[in-house]
Amino acid sequence: MSERTRIKRIPKRGHYDRETIDAILDEAFICHVGFVVDGQPYVIPTAFGRVGDTLYIHGSSASRMLRELSKGVKACLTVTHVDGLVLARSAFHHSINYRSVVVLGRARPVDEDAEKIDALRVITEHIVPGRWAEVRWPSEIELKATSVLSMQIDEASAKVRSGPPVDDDDDLALRVWAGVLPLAIGTGEPIADEFTDPAAAAPEYVANYRRPR
Amino acid sequence: MSERTRIKRIPKRGHYDRETIDAILDEAFICHVGFVVDGQPYVIPTAFGRVGDTLYIHGSSASRMLRELSKGVKACLTVTHVDGLVLARSAFHHSINYRSVVVLGRARPVDEDAEKIDALRVITEHIVPGRWAEVRWPSEIELKATSVLSMQIDEASAKVRSGPPVDDDDDLALRVWAGVLPLAIGTGEPIADEFTDPAAAAPEYVANYRRPR
Repeated sequence: MSERTRIKRIPKRGHYDRETIDAILDEAFICHVGFVVDGQPYVIPTAFGRVGDTLYIHGSSASRMLRELSKGVKACLTVTHVDGLVLARSAFHHSINYRSVVVLGRARPVDEDAEKIDALRVITEHIVPGRWAEVRWPSEIELKATSVLSMQIDEASAKVRSGPPVDDDDDLALRVWAGVLPLAIGTGEPIADEFTDPAAAAPEYVANYRRPR
Repeated sequence: MSERTRIKRIPKRGHYDRETIDAILDEAFICHVGFVVDGQPYVIPTAFGRVGDTLYIHGSSASRMLRELSKGVKACLTVTHVDGLVLARSAFHHSINYRSVVVLGRARPVDEDAEKIDALRVITEHIVPGRWAEVRWPSEIELKATSVLSMQIDEASAKVRSGPPVDDDDDLALRVWAGVLPLAIGTGEPIADEFTDPAAAAPEYVANYRRPR
């Protein structure tokens, strides 16, 4: 935790232990990265992976976001899970159950081929555990066309809201249904592409995909 | 569209018509807002609502984000839907099906009570259509404790990826399952709180909640 990542509003929702932070990061695979160009902040969704203290993001070498971030500018990487709608008796006490992590820092380009391939493996396995061993790995040309950046988790905080609505005592007698509508990401049936043998079942890690693992 | 919101990487994924942008915004209710304090970008998740060209966000008057944004600083509001994992035969061609919108602009504080209440109604109804009519509306004290900001949709773009993986011809003969695993947000059973009559069913707009409507 730093002064910049201390949760100021509703401090009891703030968490700074790595176990909480890592669990929230690892359940997600999309983050929103913030960076500044000419004074204008941009917030762009992108996939990521984590290993230890390191977060990896990647993309085309031509991506503006990756080119800007690779200069080592200040960045913010945020991950959010929406767990439910919190429906109170008063409009004021409506809320959302969520878990989020904010990581502040600077990204560093991963230039060396071996670390780059390892980072791509980390990202792939973070998103779809089991996938890397089955697919064709990056060629030299593909590696050159790919930018990989790392960001350290050393200035981070989590914020969590869970549980039922908290209504004012005076409102409890109102005849309004109050409670939580849980929300979660679910999977549909895997859709094989036209070049996949129609007799081939989707691999177990696809058919039984779930987060957290 | 402006030069700042033109999709540069994979231009065919870019969309600038309001119909596409509004549909993506309206299916979501959480955005990630980017703003800059002392050169450091912050990206914070928050609920929002839309009516016409106006996006509304709200929160505690003590919130740092709202206090910063209410100064009229440059901001970025991003919304993302993750629609599926795109599993190709090569690591390189893996992707994610998604729909995102980026709105650039400056927020304006909504100070006048009537517009403020209307904005809170817009946010509530954007998140849970049907809810506003049933709940206790904000008191004068609650209104004072709440900050509402608006942001106009006049510099925005959408980016969409959909459909199967696009593999290299040379990889099509590989015996790897390739295709899409669809992902979507689903609802669980509504959980009434302890003060709700256990005999009372959750209202239809909760029991049959879905996005888009």
